[in-house]
Amino acid sequence: MSRRSGRSTRMKARANKARLSTPYTVRRIGMVSLINDDAIAIIERNADRILDEIGMEFRGDPETLALFRSHGARVDGERVRFDPGWCRDKIKTAPPIFTQHARNPARSIQIGGDAQVYAPSFGPPFVHDMERGRRYATLDDFKEITKLHHQLGAVNHSGGVVVEPVDIPVPLRHLHMAHTHLTMNDKPFMGAVTAPDRARDTIEMCRIAMGAKFVDENCVLYSVVNTNAPLVMDETMLWALRQYAKAGQCTVVSPFVLGGAMSPVSVAATLAQVLAEVLASVALIQLIRPGAPAAFGTFFSPISLRTGAPTFGTPEGTQFQMCAKSLADRLGLPFHSVGGLTAAKVPDAQAGYESQSQLMGAALAGVNFIIHATGCLEGLLTTGYEKIVMDADRCSAMQRFVQGVDFSEAAQGMDAFFEVEPGGHFLGAQHTQDNFETAFWMGGMSDNGTYEQWTAEGATWQHDRATARVKDLIETYETPAMDAAIREALDDFVARRTREIEGATT
Amino acid sequence: MSRRSGRSTRMKARANKARLSTPYTVRRIGMVSLINDDAIAIIERNADRILDEIGMEFRGDPETLALFRSHGARVDGERVRFDPGWCRDKIKTAPPIFTQHARNPARSIQIGGDAQVYAPSFGPPFVHDMERGRRYATLDDFKEITKLHHQLGAVNHSGGVVVEPVDIPVPLRHLHMAHTHLTMNDKPFMGAVTAPDRARDTIEMCRIAMGAKFVDENCVLYSVVNTNAPLVMDETMLWALRQYAKAGQCTVVSPFVLGGAMSPVSVAATLAQVLAEVLASVALIQLIRPGAPAAFGTFFSPISLRTGAPTFGTPEGTQFQMCAKSLADRLGLPFHSVGGLTAAKVPDAQAGYESQSQLMGAALAGVNFIIHATGCLEGLLTTGYEKIVMDADRCSAMQRFVQGVDFSEAAQGMDAFFEVEPGGHFLGAQHTQDNFETAFWMGGMSDNGTYEQWTAEGATWQHDRATARVKDLIETYETPAMDAAIREALDDFVARRTREIEGATT
Repeated sequence: MSRRSGRSTRMKARANKARLSTPYTVRRIGMVSLINDDAIAIIERNADRILDEIGMEFRGDPETLALFRSHGARVDGERVRFDPGWCRDKIKTAPPIFTQHARNPARSIQIGGDAQVYAPSFGPPFVHDMERGRRYATLDDFKEITKLHHQLGAVNHSGGVVVEPVDIPVPLRHLHMAHTHLTMNDKPFMGAVTAPDRARDTIEMCRIAMGAKFVDENCVLYSVVNTNAPLVMDETMLWALRQYAKAGQCTVVSPFVLGGAMSPVSVAATLAQVLAEVLASVALIQLIRPGAPAAFGTFFSPISLRTGAPTFGTPEGTQFQMCAKSLADRLGLPFHSVGGLTAAKVPDAQAGYESQSQLMGAALAGVNFIIHATGCLEGLLTTGYEKIVMDADRCSAMQRFVQGVDFSEAAQGMDAFFEVEPGGHFLGAQHTQDNFETAFWMGGMSDNGTYEQWTAEGATWQHDRATARVKDLIETYETPAMDAAIREALDDFVARRTREIEGATT
Repeated sequence: MSRRSGRSTRMKARANKARLSTPYTVRRIGMVSLINDDAIAIIERNADRILDEIGMEFRGDPETLALFRSHGARVDGERVRFDPGWCRDKIKTAPPIFTQHARNPARSIQIGGDAQVYAPSFGPPFVHDMERGRRYATLDDFKEITKLHHQLGAVNHSGGVVVEPVDIPVPLRHLHMAHTHLTMNDKPFMGAVTAPDRARDTIEMCRIAMGAKFVDENCVLYSVVNTNAPLVMDETMLWALRQYAKAGQCTVVSPFVLGGAMSPVSVAATLAQVLAEVLASVALIQLIRPGAPAAFGTFFSPISLRTGAPTFGTPEGTQFQMCAKSLADRLGLPFHSVGGLTAAKVPDAQAGYESQSQLMGAALAGVNFIIHATGCLEGLLTTGYEKIVMDADRCSAMQRFVQGVDFSEAAQGMDAFFEVEPGGHFLGAQHTQDNFETAFWMGGMSDNGTYEQWTAEGATWQHDRATARVKDLIETYETPAMDAAIREALDDFVARRTREIEGATT
């Protein structure tokens, strides 16, 4: 009796503990690397040669060109060339590990080192669920998806443009997105990169929510700028990069590459090109503000050489990522790259195969910030509601995986062998009783039961169960607490800026 | 003009080359290992202690017990105990690498070393396809599935019990299965393990098909015996093991473990148990015939501690596999383990996520013989037609992946950067033209096109496309050539043995 009640209390305590998610995962296993020292030297030499002999274009921003020139880069029109080693030298001031602070300090994340952060998809204009189908996304969708991310323990980040809120005019979207991230989730989030004013507004909203002094002294925004591969950074991205760097906020430089179109048709050549673009762009960040947090990002999708379409879940996508991680390590930069990408239009088996392949590749590569870990459909043109909860389940499996195997004496369980005879079973053994609640990872989206049970329960496909799970998560969502004065100040800021922006554009 | 026609000839030659599949894959990348030397020492010590102090039971076979006793093992009833190091010493005669010969020499496979073989699911009594649903399998299903495996280049093996032909009486099934494997596919296959007579019949049929002398001197059958974990091998398995070992054919010892029920509830403890069972059983094979080919097999599925059901695609399943590979390497034995397992009842997203997780784990672990790489549904109770072709596509991706990245000068493609300006594109570059046909892996089962194109083509889910692919493969199947006299002798053998077996049982 006393034993049973003791166990029941213990079980309850453990269940409660299990519900509290950790803000990020600490990888305790080695990385998979596919590139040896000789090959690294080749790629680095090729990148240096590209920067020296061809150079990179920084378009529409004289201030950037002047800054490069004043530090000794060779500027010719908008083309900037770099002596071998110059960029690498400038990058040395970037921190290898830093913290992105969340509004709720318990949700703050480490970027770099052995940390892994799993973050939502970024950018889709469309949204899909099984009941309403595929459609342009709205702010309501954005809010519902933010609720899901708040609820899902395996998703460590509120993301950025989780979908484009197409019903809101472009110049106002960033206000509503930042407002939603700050008020409906308390995990860290990403800044707007579509115009310098929008970057400034996002920073200002963080100052309201988290204190001006705190934001001035800490990284609270993590924003991704894409190069226009090959070897171009455009005005919009440059301006956003400059705003965030000046403010000491993190900028990830992530060349977006469709391999074979925007880079040569091989992993080795694309690695050199991407390394060149990151070297020059992160060097720029460090010229703007030495010590500003930055990361080495990649988005590589080989195109189908039959149709020109981007492909996902391919061997080359993961090979590229694993090699690029080694290049980032050599620069001492955190590494940001893609998770569960798929070209599937619906949450079908293709979505499962491709997303698991990409996500597992990212986890095993040791990616520090896994973007697009959840929700991707149609190569990021669509965010899927069901796909979010299906992917999150797999994120939780990978988070467990990278923590490695427990070889402690307790895990060895030698007593159990002496308790159970050959041919017996371990279900009732003391070792099993003591450990069963936490021994194995338990997913939430797989049906593991018998065929008969599955039939009796409606013969559901995984996406059917995901629809139910989405509804349950949205129904049970509770808005995270926020000081009323802060909430009011945020509302006021959005209202004021809306008036200003509408005034300026009419 | 001459250039174009030259290219067209080259394209044709390449396309023809691409259609010829290689019989197995040579892994050129490092393995993922999750176990360091200290942990290996712990597991080996624990396995030795289990064998020394608890021992393993070999049931219903006095000859085995006598053999063990005569070589110095401690036999007590059916329990056999071993001094530490005794089994390891006996195992030294097992070859680390050997060839399993196929009827068609071009299909022969290497087992062990850097080779990876991808093989079908084994054992399901049920079969599933989208049009006919789930049902007991028949010999017709067995034959259709064998046709698929013959057609699919990524499947290197014809397998064994690809489904149970339930319409054939149990004592006759092995004859029809071996006959189908030998006549309808020319890839290597697996032997029956359900009774000593059936093992002998299978060997005899190989002698007819491939020559008696050849079979006596070479490995042509690869057969899996499961222990009854924990620490038991039963009469049926022992007799099959003895037949194949005596004949110099390969026996894989593969403890079948539902973790938490048939082993303690941890990866570390299960590793020690499985190592103990393999040590004792492979030692037995070497006592029967020193030098007989053998392999270290594993099948580990953690059970759901909520429902008792086996689970697949879990972190622990892959962690276990990666650690066990390191233990097999220490023994100098080829490593056999599971591929694309899933508990899904249908070819849905769960099937995709779980199977990709298991398959990618196996590929990265460096598994030499990946069993259940294709077709698994419902935790091996069902083989899915669509699932076979969907999985085979992913096998082909993994086969490409493990061959690593090409860092040759041609792959570096530096000329392309000088040809294409910053902001340009590489589609027309010479490097792209020269390499596009083989540059990137091209899957056959993913839809990568636009949403509009996908809609116009019927808005198919992957399993819909798989149904069409299955039909196409079965329609275009051609029976591989076989000498008419051999074919007749095989038919006669099956007819004669059928009469004898029916006579004996009536």
